[in-house]
Amino acid sequence: MSDQQFRAALEAAYRIGGKDPTDTFLAALAELSPALGRHIVTYIYGDLHQRPQFSTAERELMTLVVLATLGGCEREIALHAGVGLDAGLAADQIVEAFVHVGAYAGTPRAVNAVLAVRRTLAERGLLPVPDPAGPPL
Amino acid sequence: MSDQQFRAALEAAYRIGGKDPTDTFLAALAELSPALGRHIVTYIYGDLHQRPQFSTAERELMTLVVLATLGGCEREIALHAGVGLDAGLAADQIVEAFVHVGAYAGTPRAVNAVLAVRRTLAERGLLPVPDPAGPPL
Amino acid sequence: MSDQQFRAALEAAYRIGGKDPTDTFLAALAELSPALGRHIVTYIYGDLHQRPQFSTAERELMTLVVLATLGGCEREIALHAGVGLDAGLAADQIVEAFVHVGAYAGTPRAVNAVLAVRRTLAERGLLPVPDPAGPPL
Amino acid sequence: MSDQQFRAALEAAYRIGGKDPTDTFLAALAELSPALGRHIVTYIYGDLHQRPQFSTAERELMTLVVLATLGGCEREIALHAGVGLDAGLAADQIVEAFVHVGAYAGTPRAVNAVLAVRRTLAERGLLPVPDPAGPPL
Amino acid sequence: MSDQQFRAALEAAYRIGGKDPTDTFLAALAELSPALGRHIVTYIYGDLHQRPQFSTAERELMTLVVLATLGGCEREIALHAGVGLDAGLAADQIVEAFVHVGAYAGTPRAVNAVLAVRRTLAERGLLPVPDPAGPPL
Amino acid sequence: MSDQQFRAALEAAYRIGGKDPTDTFLAALAELSPALGRHIVTYIYGDLHQRPQFSTAERELMTLVVLATLGGCEREIALHAGVGLDAGLAADQIVEAFVHVGAYAGTPRAVNAVLAVRRTLAERGLLPVPDPAGPPL
Repeated sequence: MSDQQFRAALEAAYRIGGKDPTDTFLAALAELSPALGRHIVTYIYGDLHQRPQFSTAERELMTLVVLATLGGCEREIALHAGVGLDAGLAADQIVEAFVHVGAYAGTPRAVNAVLAVRRTLAERGLLPVPDPAGPPL
Repeated sequence: MSDQQFRAALEAAYRIGGKDPTDTFLAALAELSPALGRHIVTYIYGDLHQRPQFSTAERELMTLVVLATLGGCEREIALHAGVGLDAGLAADQIVEAFVHVGAYAGTPRAVNAVLAVRRTLAERGLLPVPDPAGPPL
Repeated sequence: MSDQQFRAALEAAYRIGGKDPTDTFLAALAELSPALGRHIVTYIYGDLHQRPQFSTAERELMTLVVLATLGGCEREIALHAGVGLDAGLAADQIVEAFVHVGAYAGTPRAVNAVLAVRRTLAERGLLPVPDPAGPPL
Repeated sequence: MSDQQFRAALEAAYRIGGKDPTDTFLAALAELSPALGRHIVTYIYGDLHQRPQFSTAERELMTLVVLATLGGCEREIALHAGVGLDAGLAADQIVEAFVHVGAYAGTPRAVNAVLAVRRTLAERGLLPVPDPAGPPL
Repeated sequence: MSDQQFRAALEAAYRIGGKDPTDTFLAALAELSPALGRHIVTYIYGDLHQRPQFSTAERELMTLVVLATLGGCEREIALHAGVGLDAGLAADQIVEAFVHVGAYAGTPRAVNAVLAVRRTLAERGLLPVPDPAGPPL
Repeated sequence: MSDQQFRAALEAAYRIGGKDPTDTFLAALAELSPALGRHIVTYIYGDLHQRPQFSTAERELMTLVVLATLGGCEREIALHAGVGLDAGLAADQIVEAFVHVGAYAGTPRAVNAVLAVRRTLAERGLLPVPDPAGPPL
């Protein structure tokens, strides 16, 4: 990965994830493993997000679903919820995605993920999340 | 859950998952745990899939992402790939979703999921899956 | 799920999990996903816990075993330890269950689960947990 | 662990797990890692199962719950279902335990575990498993 | 990733993993997701394995440890055991690594991993694996 | 396990893990499950670490890889990073091991593990971790 490719990928990461959150993330890794930060920027934002099968919003939704399923990724969930909102996901799509995860990965994973996005939603004035008109669960 | 509610949910499961795969699934559980089959039909198809935040295709995509992340769910992945195709997902979206999972849950989970849909795609004449014009990985 | 069914399930959740913890749990989800809270009450407490194969204590023991195995569920473990104690589990059964989990899911999962119940046990004056007379490990 | 301690543990493993399944298990490991087989016999059967907090049936139930939650342990589930039945678990307790797991670890883990015990139950003439009189799920 | 970079990475993959197994792996993905195969070759073999902190043998050992911990990766374990042996790992190091995994991820993960390498070891005439002179477990 | 065997194992745990961290760990479990602490000392340090296939440094490296893969073990990662450094692992080997884990278990597990060792490395004056001269990721 040349420096030129990295700079293009970093621009993509800035557009998708925001300049400040991206720089904060890279700074947290800078003293520990700059190579890991660089790989995430170049592969996930420079390559994967540029592929045409999915929009940024769709990719962030899938990322949130993986993170909720894995467990132990509450920090990443809060971060990617913000990225997903910036990309056009609605707050009730994000929490509904976690409810859906609950059916396949268990309710604790769903509850933990839902609670992990509270602050992200609150900071943007998106609480309470609208409850859908569909069948009650 | 009344019998009337169950019948409505079963009709939804037939529409989404197809009558034969649904009946095969319920028959496999019939001697072991009909309650589990009934719960899956009523909750996942009768309730969850009826909620308005996501289309059937979007829910099946999320289901495939959870299953790939969990690991050890190759049979379910093959089944839900068929459901997702029926709901309008393209073959290259399904495999690209697993490539995306690979970044967040590791390449073995991605490879296993991709290989698990081979037969489903082959039976429908959907191989080879078109490789996108985006950046090579 | 009718409102009448939900109220019956909520009464069951109050009896099993206690009114205050149940209300606190539902309040935490109220602004985010009331549907998820409602589902957990109706399915887990209204339906699952009413089935005759296991007592409440046995179900809570199994719940604690799942949570310890999953990892990343320390908050839920602390909560369900209290529910299990109310249902008749002894403190040394709860910690021994986690020791048993350790053999099949690894010692870190066991250690994390054991440490997660410290406050629950301390608040009830149940420390130190009696060490059994069986063979030392 | 002295040879005398190992022999006592092996006798316990024979009593709990049956002589033939235990010998088959140890033979499968004999060319690869006899140390691992020896550790499992001495620790799990010689020590853990001898502790007084739980009966053999209760320990096997917890083992089945861990294995179902972990995923990818279908062979072990089939084996321990037999051990659990020998220890006094009823067939409908075993499948109900997996239904309970489904609420906390997701329905795919429950379905896979239920299907994994079919042959064990069929060989003992225990199919169909009686469906409980409790609330339908 | 330019084609030139890919060809260099493919040469590295051939050297580390062997030409035939690498080509078989890529062929299995060719109709499904050539991009995924290309990413694995370029990132894991072209980049990661070239970094100086670990030898090929050490990286393959870590790979085997991750795969055993994840579960559901028996095919990959068989494959990487062969790569590890080619890189200089001894058969008893591979099985001992899985025994070590068992302490931290549970004995079922260890047993499954040990059994997954039987064929790989048998084909190379490496059975029985020598049992170490250290303390019995 | 006789008291004499336990004392020998405790001496091994002191040598490998340090007296203070070992005593702190055992004290945390003392009121909850001394049996679990005793098992970890006797099995992992008294038996497993004494076997000849791997050095202490190699075993700690494998332990760190398992813990990173499992997720939810940040406290244990910080602890074992210290043990690994004492045994001769270099700081850049520890973070590189987590980067390697990322390829097989996903980047969130890698990032969480890398961040979990920051304090351990900072307290020993080992930040910034040197970035290798190999190919950039």
